Amino acid sequence: MNDSVGIVTTQYAQFKTDLHLESGRRLGPLTLAYETYGQLNSARDNALLVTHAWTGDAHAAGRHHEDERKPGWWDNMIGPGKVFDTERFFVICSNVIGSCKGSTGPTSLNPATGRPYRLSFPVLMVRDMVHAQRLLIDHLEIEQLCCVVGGSMGAMQALEWAIHYPQRVRSIVPIAGTGRTSPMAIALNALARQSIFNDPLWKKGKYHFDHPPADGFALARAVGHISFLSDASMQLKFARRFSRMDGMFDFFGKFEVERYLDYNGRSFVERFDPNSFLYLAKALDLYDVAWRFDSAREALSQLVCPSLWFAFTSDWLYPPYATEEVVEELERQKKPVDYALISSDYGHDSFLVEPEKFIPQLKNFLAQL
Amino acid sequence: MNDSVGIVTTQYAQFKTDLHLESGRRLGPLTLAYETYGQLNSARDNALLVTHAWTGDAHAAGRHHEDERKPGWWDNMIGPGKVFDTERFFVICSNVIGSCKGSTGPTSLNPATGRPYRLSFPVLMVRDMVHAQRLLIDHLEIEQLCCVVGGSMGAMQALEWAIHYPQRVRSIVPIAGTGRTSPMAIALNALARQSIFNDPLWKKGKYHFDHPPADGFALARAVGHISFLSDASMQLKFARRFSRMDGMFDFFGKFEVERYLDYNGRSFVERFDPNSFLYLAKALDLYDVAWRFDSAREALSQLVCPSLWFAFTSDWLYPPYATEEVVEELERQKKPVDYALISSDYGHDSFLVEPEKFIPQLKNFLAQL
Repeated sequence: MNDSVGIVTTQYAQFKTDLHLESGRRLGPLTLAYETYGQLNSARDNALLVTHAWTGDAHAAGRHHEDERKPGWWDNMIGPGKVFDTERFFVICSNVIGSCKGSTGPTSLNPATGRPYRLSFPVLMVRDMVHAQRLLIDHLEIEQLCCVVGGSMGAMQALEWAIHYPQRVRSIVPIAGTGRTSPMAIALNALARQSIFNDPLWKKGKYHFDHPPADGFALARAVGHISFLSDASMQLKFARRFSRMDGMFDFFGKFEVERYLDYNGRSFVERFDPNSFLYLAKALDLYDVAWRFDSAREALSQLVCPSLWFAFTSDWLYPPYATEEVVEELERQKKPVDYALISSDYGHDSFLVEPEKFIPQLKNFLAQL
Repeated sequence: MNDSVGIVTTQYAQFKTDLHLESGRRLGPLTLAYETYGQLNSARDNALLVTHAWTGDAHAAGRHHEDERKPGWWDNMIGPGKVFDTERFFVICSNVIGSCKGSTGPTSLNPATGRPYRLSFPVLMVRDMVHAQRLLIDHLEIEQLCCVVGGSMGAMQALEWAIHYPQRVRSIVPIAGTGRTSPMAIALNALARQSIFNDPLWKKGKYHFDHPPADGFALARAVGHISFLSDASMQLKFARRFSRMDGMFDFFGKFEVERYLDYNGRSFVERFDPNSFLYLAKALDLYDVAWRFDSAREALSQLVCPSLWFAFTSDWLYPPYATEEVVEELERQKKPVDYALISSDYGHDSFLVEPEKFIPQLKNFLAQL
């Protein structure tokens, strides 16, 4: 039997409401792009929400058409018989607001002006993304999600769900997450930001969509890329190999690792919007579970459901200690919490590269729901 | 008694010779900027060479004039009664070739054209810097240095001295060094490079010296700066404090850590040359002790003198394992080698920030020479 969800279609839910944002501003009307895999059961209690990372999208599994080069970004996890088993779960993945992958973001038309928002788009927090997702879950007439699961920014969303909608989730699985972004992570995002700001084509966000600030944006992506990798994974993949195309003593000669960063940065420019990238980076930087609470302790006291956490030994962007701070507080509060530190050399990206290392525990957790 | 070396003057040694570079090119005539502290004894055997890091200079101790805001970069180490005791040692520090701090580099006049070299300057390796320093040591009529000591790129120079001039050094102390730059370190330098290349004012190195590519260069410095710090040191210094001058929901609002990186980047632009920065970054990337040998093992077999190595727990640019690879090979070869892993939160910069943590062992080592 085929373990793919097959051909899928992105759907778009429209909401004529205004979302009251953490910033005090309002955003609306809203569009949310989403995909679903599997069937909602008659009790409507088998829905599992997958939340995506920074530059992810709603297309988590299957293919949009036979010839699509790559399947959805978590296709190895979602499908019949896979860990997010579509024979059992109704899997939902929605693109976050602020993104450029179908949900309302800086590239959308500002209804007040009839032109793209660009920098008139409001600064968002991860919490706002979750409030928007709640509209979608209401729209799908789902009273309670059986699980919210995601990595990186997806982990932040899962935690926010459990804290702000404790009655709407039966469990969460935050992977490679953190309770608050570190100054190191902020500093890395600052490099990415500045590299876009420095590009004369950026024009304070008013770039021509056909002529984006490609040089600055590719560099910004390279900054991110490095933070998702690790010293060990780069040693494995590139070591100190010098490009065969260059002379070692050419001023512009490149090591293989440089060529790779260049190539990836360039191809990223074709599939993402610089302003969206900046708004989402900002949301990451502002992430602090304690926001609007007196403390992280008080915030975490809102959570009631079981949670399963994974961190990765070589992740230096959201290092294991960041997850452990949250897990230890939950343990102090006698919440039902499980945690596994996964040994992997692939840095922050480990959750995408070596899922086999945490799938058994994840399967076990989901089986008990 | 005052423990300062007092008022000092940078000297300039001129060499009419051509240096044969590792690249196969020749460089000459050469100027080397240097300073000395203390007195060369009559046996001429008390000279200690201090080697500087990437953006360092010959001004390691004392002040150039009463009003100089800051003393030399290693003033806390060099002076009467200090670890590099100028009552005992004749301390020499010379600016490396390729730099812009008085020694021949890309800002120097190319004798073939009468104009600054800029990108016609040859790509250098750390080994070339050491060969140039050897000219200075000859010029000072010193047959054997009692010690070569330096951190980061300075550690590379110390190791090269011991390997290529085994008869000219009685000991070396490489601090926060590595036997070869890792792909992670190369990738970080690639970000710095690209941020300069992206600046329209860079003009392939032909920028106006009064209008350097300041935006790109400040960003390049910020990349470097982050790699010299650590997650822990940023937590201590900045945590998640938001700038008081900005609103948290301003698109251009900044965290304190961002303001700091900006400020430091900007002030750096005023005191360093972008092309020199790029040439030295290249030399760092190309650094591999095994270059022109069959292996690191063969290279290290050339070393005969005692060596003392320090690495720092939070250094993620040249992590402790990089030093340990070299130390372990030296141990296998039964060379006289000492190593201490220093616990410090200050990342690669630890060697400058917390010298008190390794000074006792260093003092002890120097006492035995």
